Amino acid sequence: MIYESVKQMQKELGQLQKWLDTAAAYATEKKFDVNVLAGSRLAPDQFPLSRQIQTACDTVKFALARVAGKEMPSIPDEEKTIDDLKARVKKTIALVDGVSAKDFEGAADRVVVNPRWEGKVMNAKDYFLEHVTPNFYFHLAHTYAILRHNGVSIGKKDYLGELSLKDAK
Amino acid sequence: MIYESVKQMQKELGQLQKWLDTAAAYATEKKFDVNVLAGSRLAPDQFPLSRQIQTACDTVKFALARVAGKEMPSIPDEEKTIDDLKARVKKTIALVDGVSAKDFEGAADRVVVNPRWEGKVMNAKDYFLEHVTPNFYFHLAHTYAILRHNGVSIGKKDYLGELSLKDAK
Repeated sequence: MIYESVKQMQKELGQLQKWLDTAAAYATEKKFDVNVLAGSRLAPDQFPLSRQIQTACDTVKFALARVAGKEMPSIPDEEKTIDDLKARVKKTIALVDGVSAKDFEGAADRVVVNPRWEGKVMNAKDYFLEHVTPNFYFHLAHTYAILRHNGVSIGKKDYLGELSLKDAK
Repeated sequence: MIYESVKQMQKELGQLQKWLDTAAAYATEKKFDVNVLAGSRLAPDQFPLSRQIQTACDTVKFALARVAGKEMPSIPDEEKTIDDLKARVKKTIALVDGVSAKDFEGAADRVVVNPRWEGKVMNAKDYFLEHVTPNFYFHLAHTYAILRHNGVSIGKKDYLGELSLKDAK
């Protein structure tokens, strides 16, 4: 189910792209520079929008590297504009396309190391459940909240995207 | 892995209880009524803190009902104070304790119905991945963001809680 959870994160990154389009349209309508939003934050000691998006993207990339064991490129956090951030999201979506369900099969046996853990390690499945998932949605929801706080008109449907609804039998 | 994901949500609800304690201590220090925070929101047309917490709790409860197929109590959204909200979270944590991994085994074959879906249905596993998970973390992260926006001193460690770190072999 880890792969399916990562595909769900990929879908959410697609939703995030649309929020940024809505933000750009709103900025045009209100005649402000949309890139002001990249520096907006909800508290002075929280990340601004740009870093929320960078961290959401990196959380997915690290899952591909650490849980699926795939080689991943280094992506520096250099995005300044909303267009830059859209490109970062697009790049991350493409990284997920390069990984298959099969790559996640050994997750329960993989070991994740992180310099912050002072020599300790995590099982890759625990890492996915306890770190990747809450962390990804944290930064995704903060991105959403910063946009909403600034008046961008997006709603829960834009957050969840299309659901896999089926006809009742 | 659905059960393990629900246990992770239960752990996050335990973290949320601590954030509310930190908020209460902050209110005492700053000499304001902590219950003001229950009505705080990040945008005038977003839910206030109280309803963010109620919805996070209900999302977990609905997962137990719809994905694990367990009978769940009706819990009215009547909480007004931070203490009320803490009790709601505690009640939800106890509901998760009443469900076992075995209860989730049939999830892939269960069907979820929702009046909002106009006659359509969802597979319970899809529902868990596409609705429960993003929705739970949405309301959890908004709860966190509202507290941070109001000056409550909590950080990423308070959000993630203790990780299952192990000694390296």
